[in-house]
Amino acid sequence: MRLPLFTCFALISSVLMLSAAPQPADLIITHAHIVTMNATREIIQDGAVIIKDARILAVGPAALAANYTAPKTIDARGDLVLPGMINTHTHASMTVFRGLGDDVRDRLTKLIFPLEKNLIDRELTYWGALHGFIEMVEGGVTTAVDMYYFEDEVARAAKKIGIRGVLGESILNFPTPDSPQPYGGLVYAKKFAADYRHDPLITPALAPHAPYSLDADHLRLVAQASAELDLPVLIHVAEMTDEITTLRKNHHMTPVEYLDSVGLLTPRLVAAHCIFVTDSDIALMKTRDIGIAHNMVANIKSAKGVSPALKMHDDGLRVGLGTDGPMSGNTLDLIGQLGYVAKLHKLDRKDRNVMPALKAMEMATLGGARALHRENDLGSLEPGKLADVIILDHESTALIPLYDVYSALVYAAGPRDVRTTIIHGRVIMEDRKLLTIDVTEVKTRMRAIAARITAAVAAGIK
Amino acid sequence: MRLPLFTCFALISSVLMLSAAPQPADLIITHAHIVTMNATREIIQDGAVIIKDARILAVGPAALAANYTAPKTIDARGDLVLPGMINTHTHASMTVFRGLGDDVRDRLTKLIFPLEKNLIDRELTYWGALHGFIEMVEGGVTTAVDMYYFEDEVARAAKKIGIRGVLGESILNFPTPDSPQPYGGLVYAKKFAADYRHDPLITPALAPHAPYSLDADHLRLVAQASAELDLPVLIHVAEMTDEITTLRKNHHMTPVEYLDSVGLLTPRLVAAHCIFVTDSDIALMKTRDIGIAHNMVANIKSAKGVSPALKMHDDGLRVGLGTDGPMSGNTLDLIGQLGYVAKLHKLDRKDRNVMPALKAMEMATLGGARALHRENDLGSLEPGKLADVIILDHESTALIPLYDVYSALVYAAGPRDVRTTIIHGRVIMEDRKLLTIDVTEVKTRMRAIAARITAAVAAGIK
Repeated sequence: MRLPLFTCFALISSVLMLSAAPQPADLIITHAHIVTMNATREIIQDGAVIIKDARILAVGPAALAANYTAPKTIDARGDLVLPGMINTHTHASMTVFRGLGDDVRDRLTKLIFPLEKNLIDRELTYWGALHGFIEMVEGGVTTAVDMYYFEDEVARAAKKIGIRGVLGESILNFPTPDSPQPYGGLVYAKKFAADYRHDPLITPALAPHAPYSLDADHLRLVAQASAELDLPVLIHVAEMTDEITTLRKNHHMTPVEYLDSVGLLTPRLVAAHCIFVTDSDIALMKTRDIGIAHNMVANIKSAKGVSPALKMHDDGLRVGLGTDGPMSGNTLDLIGQLGYVAKLHKLDRKDRNVMPALKAMEMATLGGARALHRENDLGSLEPGKLADVIILDHESTALIPLYDVYSALVYAAGPRDVRTTIIHGRVIMEDRKLLTIDVTEVKTRMRAIAARITAAVAAGIK
Repeated sequence: MRLPLFTCFALISSVLMLSAAPQPADLIITHAHIVTMNATREIIQDGAVIIKDARILAVGPAALAANYTAPKTIDARGDLVLPGMINTHTHASMTVFRGLGDDVRDRLTKLIFPLEKNLIDRELTYWGALHGFIEMVEGGVTTAVDMYYFEDEVARAAKKIGIRGVLGESILNFPTPDSPQPYGGLVYAKKFAADYRHDPLITPALAPHAPYSLDADHLRLVAQASAELDLPVLIHVAEMTDEITTLRKNHHMTPVEYLDSVGLLTPRLVAAHCIFVTDSDIALMKTRDIGIAHNMVANIKSAKGVSPALKMHDDGLRVGLGTDGPMSGNTLDLIGQLGYVAKLHKLDRKDRNVMPALKAMEMATLGGARALHRENDLGSLEPGKLADVIILDHESTALIPLYDVYSALVYAAGPRDVRTTIIHGRVIMEDRKLLTIDVTEVKTRMRAIAARITAAVAAGIK
């Protein structure tokens, strides 16, 4: 006997319904166009995501929703539902300086370091970070990997808005805004790490600035602390031509080899930039199983170059995307990075086919999770993973028509297409409205800080 | 006697008020942060723009508004007010194909031409163009330079929404969707030009496809028609490596030299792309005073290369920005191009200082106007120019803080920051709501067309 299709569906539905009473959940997203980023890169045209206890309980066709009951259901009405994106390298607090002295020569030493030395305090760090996290949540970033000073203030801002963070306290040889003693950063970092040890959202980390701004003994101390306390290490690597020259001259090594020599090249490391790396560096990074933060926009804005991140990705290394700080890349969302990443690698390799849109999406989600060695928890929409989920408006003009969802996301979407952001199972932004903080207060604080900075710059800060 | 500042202001205001009864205007924009793009690149922090009879009557401090009376006043409340942007090269109707076969080799001959040959009709051209124009208006484009088939349908769509257009009917050697006879495009184009001769918004144009898709006699006929009828000519130039090789082999000339030899290199020409041009080509283009449409995003997405458009701009050539069609660049706004243009030229020249943000803004506004030889009418906010004005939301998270308005626009703004678009003195979009058309109807039509295209592709179109 052949049953009409409708009857089949009805029967299956009934079986599902009868098989058990609806199970309790916390949040149901239904009628979603789901981009799972699971192992088969499955796309579900009319699907549901079920969330419970901050994790994804189930993902499947929309009919699945009938098996669950929850205090809140979001009808996505065809909107795109994606894993939250992972910004693997940023300095969120630097929003306070965004747009100051772009296009200026030697700006790191002539502008950024003096500004930081004279102006950074707890207030600036907190409000700057909060403003940066607003931008990330608005743009679909659900995990921020941050390195700065007063990182406990950054953590306080992350907790306030509810974003996931891997937050690294900066460590340098010379005195810094939060550590007047040379070598003080490591002490500060250990205290910070102890305070946030068991936080569900915050992973404290150590952030030695770069191979050239700490001496070898100092770098070894960081490596030792990382091993003893099982802390991630965040660092800038192979970003500057000077860095390459200096390390070659003083140590006869590339930055990657040098970091290996001081014991920092471990799976706990996330190396940002990696622009000037050799094939042999790449092989070593793969052997050591480190994570890489690829910051395309910042790297080309400063005219430094295109990192061979595509080769690293294709070779199976753990490559995520980062925005860098807003004095370098100016924006903090990853959707705005996707197009640059895809197009610049095509251009760099003179072949439009080496970097299909899907690869850029992989870097922004799973790649970031892998860079943090958190792929069991983050980076895709699969049962058991943490519930970091974003919803994009499918009615956005640039997303119509929608033949290929990866093309649409990478070549046409913008950060303002994000409608809803869920982190750790909690709705942080819904229909473009932030639910956890007062955005107006943050803007007011930001403008007051900007006025203070403008006055300091006008007075000739040095 | 020294008067307190407040008294001085009060006196001046009184004099202004008493000097004459308020003059009638059509539209007043006040309390605006005005980026004039006038000769001194003046920025007015709290300013007003007065509009009458489709033109700008006055631009100045906000107090100016008191001298005028108008049926409508827009209080910009600190929002950024800019000249409307000029998209100097696009194929708006191709929105219907957007996202089809990105990252596919030989897509022009294997995918695009067969799709166009089999599917393009009046309906598709009209609705595709209208959808593209919605995206442009939403993203702050007020003039579209378009080349396609059935260009009268594109003109109908432009009139419907109220966007300014320089619209070129495509001319090729072989039969096209609207001209089954070989060489039919020129006849079609002349008829179209006659119909729109005196339209205030539409400038009809001739669009020979490229130096390689029309023979020399055909190109000469186009040049002749352009001269006789005073019509702009739109063409793709030096975009393909094949094009360079073929013209070198057959004519011993570069594409630019070849176009000069057939009489097309005149001030009426807008040459799109110009990627593979020599220094001597650039000198010749300058002598002939042609316009150039620089399509950075499309050119790098296809891995073709970075046009020396910065050198052209610095040498005083007339360089505007274009998006190319949405199968090439995928989006149709210019705000999304600004960051690419600035950063890619920095990268290409390995110097972050050669391309400050201001130059990208110049290309998007004044440069586009100059490319069309319309700088007396378009491209800046100055008395006497046509009233094409856009307003950007200064409360957008990425635009806070605002130290340098050009940095903010080029490195941080997005197309969705546009709040209001005014073209020819008419408010086309206000507070992100289109006033002239039913957006829902257009989306419905687009989805129906997309379903038809999907079916055709599935059936194996050739």
